[in-house]
Amino acid sequence: MPDPNRGTAASHTRFVLVDASHAGNVGAVARAIKVMGFDDLALVAPRHADVLQQPQARAMASGALDVLDAARVVATLGEALVGVHVVCATAMTPRDFGPPVFAPRERLPALAGEGLAVAFVFGGERFGLANDDVYRCHLCLSVPTAKDFGSLNLAQAVQVIAYEWRQALGGFEVLPRTPTPDLADAAEVQAALEHWQEVLLAIGFLDPQAPKRLMPRLNQLLNRAQLRREELHILRGIARAARRHVR
Amino acid sequence: MPDPNRGTAASHTRFVLVDASHAGNVGAVARAIKVMGFDDLALVAPRHADVLQQPQARAMASGALDVLDAARVVATLGEALVGVHVVCATAMTPRDFGPPVFAPRERLPALAGEGLAVAFVFGGERFGLANDDVYRCHLCLSVPTAKDFGSLNLAQAVQVIAYEWRQALGGFEVLPRTPTPDLADAAEVQAALEHWQEVLLAIGFLDPQAPKRLMPRLNQLLNRAQLRREELHILRGIARAARRHVR
Repeated sequence: MPDPNRGTAASHTRFVLVDASHAGNVGAVARAIKVMGFDDLALVAPRHADVLQQPQARAMASGALDVLDAARVVATLGEALVGVHVVCATAMTPRDFGPPVFAPRERLPALAGEGLAVAFVFGGERFGLANDDVYRCHLCLSVPTAKDFGSLNLAQAVQVIAYEWRQALGGFEVLPRTPTPDLADAAEVQAALEHWQEVLLAIGFLDPQAPKRLMPRLNQLLNRAQLRREELHILRGIARAARRHVR
Repeated sequence: MPDPNRGTAASHTRFVLVDASHAGNVGAVARAIKVMGFDDLALVAPRHADVLQQPQARAMASGALDVLDAARVVATLGEALVGVHVVCATAMTPRDFGPPVFAPRERLPALAGEGLAVAFVFGGERFGLANDDVYRCHLCLSVPTAKDFGSLNLAQAVQVIAYEWRQALGGFEVLPRTPTPDLADAAEVQAALEHWQEVLLAIGFLDPQAPKRLMPRLNQLLNRAQLRREELHILRGIARAARRHVR
């Protein structure tokens, strides 16, 4: 059961980047969390103190400049975790000791139901999270990846976690949908097939002495195609047009 | 039910980028699909014909240079779809007509069970897929995003789709896990609490005349903590050390 307050859950989710070194990645992260409806970003000891202002960050943030402008730069992980109840590390380094490791989909739905303030902590591009940072966390999320090539780019990792967390919180609607199709019913399809059968006889394609399975084949084809009423009118129009040319 | 042949499914999945304009994105896409165990990338009419060789592409591909090197550049979407049975567009532009739109998690599990050759087609960074390209597709995947800011970066969109498709195909293991914890049982926890109670009395923290709920509180705390046997030994060690200092 998702938390009934999940409408406000976005304000209780924080994304924390520790030791981020590439401005472009920081901008891409801002965009990645904003498309999933989150806005709270904190940077712990980034390589460049002015990373939020760097052109590369702002270019990659695209329309998420508001997230960059509201992001905080702090010196320690502790400062970034004020107000957070559950701290999720994202790490893939082998560790014989530390918080339990889960795939996002294994753990996030239950966590979403608890309605707590959650932080997702990501390490730097080169070395990931330090062990001392991981030990502060309540759990470790590991995105399942190929055995021989498991290293996600920082912004991609943030995108997958933000996406899974949003799904766990109840998700967004897919908009826009194409309109619900106006399906032809089985009787209409049958009538159209009879119309076609008559024309196929008239144009000499269907041999009444050896019809084989032509009509059942066409019937099966139309069944799989889940004919729309509009398409049925097109097929009948073609039949009529062909019929007109028969001498 | 996933396809029993899913071990080989990676070879039947193709990622197709139409009109890609940024070399960095193309490299990031190569990495994004490789971490999810895929390797078939085709570019339709990229802005720069030599995009696969551009330094920015190779830098962002990181360890996925093999995917870049094997990628094909073709002139038309048709050429990129040879051998593909089901073509999935990824698009968010409103369209009143076209293939049915699904969230990835709604449709991909069933598609994975069909064991067909699948292509995921992504439009360019600026304009997305042209309508004529979308009309060739069997279905349209839309990653559910925030209503007011729904535009994923190209490489992030590929990462989410590749991740969802891999999950639908049965997923990868999360490795490594931390070892299964050796939990203390309830009787051991009780004995440790009695040990602590004795020490808390000795150091004058627990008043036998007004114990309030101190011991039940500690009991609840330890229950929630799911004490490991190792941690139980630490707590008993602390109690012993404190006891030694009592005159």
